[in-house]
Amino acid sequence: MPVGALSIRPAKETGEKFDVLVVGAGIIGLSCAYHIKSENPDLRVTVLDRGAAAGQGDTAKSAGAFRNVFTSEVNRLLADTGIDFYRHVQEDLGFNLGLTFVGYLWLLTSEEFRRLEALLDSVRKEGVHVKIWEREDLRDMISGMNMDFEGDEEARLLGLGSIFKGLQGIKCGTVSPDLIANFYEQEFKKMGGLIKYNTKVESLLLESASKLGIPGEPLIWQDKKIVGVKTKNGDLFAETIVVAAGRWSSQVLDSVGIDARMKPKKRQIFSVKSPKIEELLNTKGFNKYDVLPFTILPRAGVFIRPERGERGFWVGAADDLGRPFLFEEDPQAERDYYTYSMYPILSKCFPHFKDVSPTNMWAGQYDINTLDANPYIFEEAGVIVAAGLSGSGIMKADAVGRIVAALYAKKEHADLYGGREIKVSRLGVTERNLGIERFVL
Amino acid sequence: MPVGALSIRPAKETGEKFDVLVVGAGIIGLSCAYHIKSENPDLRVTVLDRGAAAGQGDTAKSAGAFRNVFTSEVNRLLADTGIDFYRHVQEDLGFNLGLTFVGYLWLLTSEEFRRLEALLDSVRKEGVHVKIWEREDLRDMISGMNMDFEGDEEARLLGLGSIFKGLQGIKCGTVSPDLIANFYEQEFKKMGGLIKYNTKVESLLLESASKLGIPGEPLIWQDKKIVGVKTKNGDLFAETIVVAAGRWSSQVLDSVGIDARMKPKKRQIFSVKSPKIEELLNTKGFNKYDVLPFTILPRAGVFIRPERGERGFWVGAADDLGRPFLFEEDPQAERDYYTYSMYPILSKCFPHFKDVSPTNMWAGQYDINTLDANPYIFEEAGVIVAAGLSGSGIMKADAVGRIVAALYAKKEHADLYGGREIKVSRLGVTERNLGIERFVL
Repeated sequence: MPVGALSIRPAKETGEKFDVLVVGAGIIGLSCAYHIKSENPDLRVTVLDRGAAAGQGDTAKSAGAFRNVFTSEVNRLLADTGIDFYRHVQEDLGFNLGLTFVGYLWLLTSEEFRRLEALLDSVRKEGVHVKIWEREDLRDMISGMNMDFEGDEEARLLGLGSIFKGLQGIKCGTVSPDLIANFYEQEFKKMGGLIKYNTKVESLLLESASKLGIPGEPLIWQDKKIVGVKTKNGDLFAETIVVAAGRWSSQVLDSVGIDARMKPKKRQIFSVKSPKIEELLNTKGFNKYDVLPFTILPRAGVFIRPERGERGFWVGAADDLGRPFLFEEDPQAERDYYTYSMYPILSKCFPHFKDVSPTNMWAGQYDINTLDANPYIFEEAGVIVAAGLSGSGIMKADAVGRIVAALYAKKEHADLYGGREIKVSRLGVTERNLGIERFVL
Repeated sequence: MPVGALSIRPAKETGEKFDVLVVGAGIIGLSCAYHIKSENPDLRVTVLDRGAAAGQGDTAKSAGAFRNVFTSEVNRLLADTGIDFYRHVQEDLGFNLGLTFVGYLWLLTSEEFRRLEALLDSVRKEGVHVKIWEREDLRDMISGMNMDFEGDEEARLLGLGSIFKGLQGIKCGTVSPDLIANFYEQEFKKMGGLIKYNTKVESLLLESASKLGIPGEPLIWQDKKIVGVKTKNGDLFAETIVVAAGRWSSQVLDSVGIDARMKPKKRQIFSVKSPKIEELLNTKGFNKYDVLPFTILPRAGVFIRPERGERGFWVGAADDLGRPFLFEEDPQAERDYYTYSMYPILSKCFPHFKDVSPTNMWAGQYDINTLDANPYIFEEAGVIVAAGLSGSGIMKADAVGRIVAALYAKKEHADLYGGREIKVSRLGVTERNLGIERFVL
């Protein structure tokens, strides 16, 4: 019978061998690779990506914004320390990341304001700087904005309530995800890190500790371990695999029965400009740049992001119930989505956008953790997974990289930038108890 | 522009309308339908299923076993109360469910026994009846079993340690999932419940509260609700939809962006018989039926389930790392899986199985909750989801049905059979904190 007369054969590992393979050269994967390599300069750390350059997946499709205004303590910590690090890189190291503290401006109905007021106290106590604007201030400062929708039948149909106050997050703004990805890539390479582009990871290689040459190995009674990855260019081996592949994480991990704990969902950005829109862009009084902050409208999470280089705004929205969980290899922006979902809200509040069509549009995908919208960072069978960034990966990438490096080093706590620390297991599976984020964009 | 000049049109609901639609006529869906209908006899409750009869999906592919031995308090409660209910149905109502208290017998190495010993105290304190068998007892009672693998090279390769003790769960045994499904179906129909077979649910129908006739409705600014299901035979409408569709749950819920919080994984059962195997089956001393209990071998979760009607055993295993998460419409059992993964362990411990091939085999899929292996029961957008049964749905089905009925009635607590109760939100998403189950088969 099968086991009898068999002896252990040496493993037939013909592919290249590394200490650490990081799957994904987006902002999360690059941060992980950078921090692992920083702490272990002698290790062979290699990043694999299906694309041709750094951050060409969902990193490039991001809205490129950051905030430290969250009600979940961990979300706040991860974002706040990340923002500090990016500021350090830009201001002290002189590496431009496009980091611009234009602020976030939530335009709130009285109902929404009251809901958030209670939460704000605790947020403020922890040193998060927020400023309340009265409606009269907003009216004076933002020329041409509609604020009062009493008796307006269209507004009623849109579910749009009158704007009661504004809430500005100060340590918030816009950033260039591409530049952050480039920073991590450059520094990682300087230390001798390798990146293999055009190398799509198809699955993980699971092998038994001692191969016997029996069909179907590894069998259920064999001790097994993830030893590498199968790519379209051949197998690659490593002691540790880090999967930080955003929406591709499940595609990679499902193959061996590891749950990436994320669901993919499309997100779309539309770039819009016109002379009137440029006037709105150049709104004074909110920041030293004299531009309108990243502004969230009081319905359906429709937001406008100032883009000074393009003299206009990027428009997006929080896409909730109704948008399917559906992995798409190449998601496309839908013009009708702008026209029928975003535009009615947008043009009602800001007539500046009336009759203007987007000049550019693109789509990516979120990797959503539906449990608590915090990242999942855990180790299983020799694989470290960093997934479920839920649309705030840009601001949390640095902290996630440091936590992954701490998990790799089997440290209980991760040192975040600026001297703060976090218990690694808080982001894991078994000890997780992070609470629900109430400050959803 | 789009919103202007539009007025609210009456909803165009041409399909049949119900109070409650339950998706899935497996054991979970039928229990939900039965309990909702019991508590609300006047409601129109209808079950939909792709198959031609009750329990023809994964219910029919189950190993058909039950136990109340769990370390997670909630798992224990749900199973224990379910077993009590099935006993009541069989003994008091005279409806045969094939419920047979043959017991579970874990054959444990000294290492495994020590790991479990600490956990057993708390399990016993709560009244779970377990019995420890010494190795000498086991040797005397189970004729022909191999227990000592010291110096055995094959056993070493198999990772098989010597058997140190046996642990028997008393309120455990085998049951016929088909008969339970039939019981719920019959009682549900008696009350006037409807079941539509051959009615595959393709997606959920999401509609805005007030339809405007704009392309792409419901739009992001519209208040929306799940109003029904799209089936291959047309649309059906209901106030409340219950999704209890096992491995199909994600297929149904992904369409609207609700996370079913489960992953599908194949499970396989092999039916084996021979004169020697029948001798093993007729092992005395463990129960009043004088058959070997449902027995778990000390490696890889390989188990043998007594099947008196077939004068043999069903063989299965816990399929962990390496078995992909992969939805399959029609999963097939793999003979090689028996030969190379199960058989070496099986025939090493029980030579009775030597050189015998399975006479029958089948495969289904688990719907696994990788967080804590307890069921997920929650409401989102008018949909009640009961999923993630993780391979112990048979024994928990009754409790799950009662919890779903309580959630439907917006009760804080569910009354389980036998006078016990549970807070409904403990099985939900936001207040969930159930701990990890340590007593995995």
